[in-house]
Amino acid sequence: MVCTSCVRKQEQEAEHGQLIASEASDPLPSWNEGATKKAIVDFVIHTTTDSSVGFIPVADRIACFDNDGTLWSEQPLYFQLAFALDRVKAMASQHPEWKNTQPFKALLEGDLKTALAGGEKALMQIVASTHSGMTTEEFDKSVKDWIATATHPKTGKHYNEMVFQPMVELLNYLRDSGFKTFIVSGGGIDFMRAWAEEVYGIPPYQTVGSSVKLKYEIGEDGEPVLVKLPELNFIDDKEGKPVGIQQHIGKRPVFAAGNSDGDYAMLQWTSTATGYPRFGMIVHHTDSIREWAYDRGSHIGRLEMGLNDASKYNWVLVDMKNDWRKIYSFEE
Amino acid sequence: MVCTSCVRKQEQEAEHGQLIASEASDPLPSWNEGATKKAIVDFVIHTTTDSSVGFIPVADRIACFDNDGTLWSEQPLYFQLAFALDRVKAMASQHPEWKNTQPFKALLEGDLKTALAGGEKALMQIVASTHSGMTTEEFDKSVKDWIATATHPKTGKHYNEMVFQPMVELLNYLRDSGFKTFIVSGGGIDFMRAWAEEVYGIPPYQTVGSSVKLKYEIGEDGEPVLVKLPELNFIDDKEGKPVGIQQHIGKRPVFAAGNSDGDYAMLQWTSTATGYPRFGMIVHHTDSIREWAYDRGSHIGRLEMGLNDASKYNWVLVDMKNDWRKIYSFEE
Repeated sequence: MVCTSCVRKQEQEAEHGQLIASEASDPLPSWNEGATKKAIVDFVIHTTTDSSVGFIPVADRIACFDNDGTLWSEQPLYFQLAFALDRVKAMASQHPEWKNTQPFKALLEGDLKTALAGGEKALMQIVASTHSGMTTEEFDKSVKDWIATATHPKTGKHYNEMVFQPMVELLNYLRDSGFKTFIVSGGGIDFMRAWAEEVYGIPPYQTVGSSVKLKYEIGEDGEPVLVKLPELNFIDDKEGKPVGIQQHIGKRPVFAAGNSDGDYAMLQWTSTATGYPRFGMIVHHTDSIREWAYDRGSHIGRLEMGLNDASKYNWVLVDMKNDWRKIYSFEE
Repeated sequence: MVCTSCVRKQEQEAEHGQLIASEASDPLPSWNEGATKKAIVDFVIHTTTDSSVGFIPVADRIACFDNDGTLWSEQPLYFQLAFALDRVKAMASQHPEWKNTQPFKALLEGDLKTALAGGEKALMQIVASTHSGMTTEEFDKSVKDWIATATHPKTGKHYNEMVFQPMVELLNYLRDSGFKTFIVSGGGIDFMRAWAEEVYGIPPYQTVGSSVKLKYEIGEDGEPVLVKLPELNFIDDKEGKPVGIQQHIGKRPVFAAGNSDGDYAMLQWTSTATGYPRFGMIVHHTDSIREWAYDRGSHIGRLEMGLNDASKYNWVLVDMKNDWRKIYSFEE
């Protein structure tokens, strides 16, 4: 009797072991073999092997990822902006004045160029009208409804299907190796939280982003609510990223991944820290067929300082076209 | 051969099982038997048993704890204020002007009453001079140095020895039951992070607190630093607590513990949420011998609204004197 149960247990352990061995043999199946993939795997082995000089205790294995252009696509316009534009259309009937007020008038006429010609002020008006003046729960629902229905103009896929499969594998690989994975994005924190846990396995409390101020108040039904105010609280971009990392995470990352100059300061803050090995990664958009190709001259995701200083800081440039076997999970 | 290894394994498992069983039989040994302890254990069993109607998925098991007066003592003055006063003394030689400037003059003369007579403005001057104008790393070091050496005027113990043993057990019990434990405190976020991970097992990214603004800049040696500015970023107190919870955690807690009216909004935000069972706890300071006894009339940790509305919201009042077998771990 004892040995029957032992044998069954050993079989289960062997199966489990095989599973782990097969995953361990290639934790990054959507990455082509080459210097980039080797650099990632070497770093993880080097920093998680007990006897290694580069060993990092689990408590300090903090990995930070930009979102737009790093974990999912960002062309032809930031997906959160697509959400805002769709919200303007959906809310137009409650705002008859928008028919004669820019930037809303142009938006409703489908003239994005005129709408955004007003620059940051116009953008802030759009954000304020679509990301505030409601409770956090109402906003969360509006994002969830949108992400479940809206589709991307080029691929026809839902926006949350346009996450990069190699990066999802990287997130899983790092977590399986004891790293805590965080999003550190210029995108709206509550916008990302509405879908990021399901798509990336990153919970709301490991999501750092831009935010508006909130107000705690008792609603008309006597129940407390948090209202999103039309006032910026924090911009988690450029020099704001190390600030956001400190305010939310409180530890200096050992791993950071970005794709644009908005990530330069985060990468610099990561790679100049001492004590442990550090890994800085830049996703370089080089695939004009399967995704988009852009860098120095782009109006979205401009990458210039990062390219200039990549070798200085030992940042690994991911060449999407050649390093990624697959970009989206829906590809054959 | 096979069976020798099986037997050894079974012995190890049996030992491990006993350990778990013994912990499970009383996960809260410093709590006296009674209604309070029973309410806690009942809640945890009710919400973590798969088949229970009150089952909460692990991802939503968010537990938030105030710090001052809830996880450690706060008398005769907030420990962080004791830190600030000690820092003023330590920094006085670099600030000869303090000899003639209030509130510093009074502080250096040991006249706390006069120093704090200036109210919030005086307090902010003390905080600004001791919590800003330095890098985050320098501040972290100053707190770690202080907590390792300073002692409490009444007990003679280090301040981080004055954490409540029953609450440390509660934190462990909740974590062992799949809850994520967060600090949500009016105290300074970076002040708490310097020692909370070691003492409470709560990492920096699960610590929510008040903060000053930070600036990312390149230091004189060419290395980037984050400088703490003499400007408030966020006050994580009263109605600020639900705001801090949303900005940092992004989920509504299912468990919250506080001790003063500064925690009222956090408790209300927790207990009025729907969908899952919720647990609200107020640590009532009733032990004038082993700790301190204070509530409605106290200048620190005033508890009035919480007492008035405890039954309305089903908040469990912890009677320190009778519910806690031991308050500090250093007691015999």
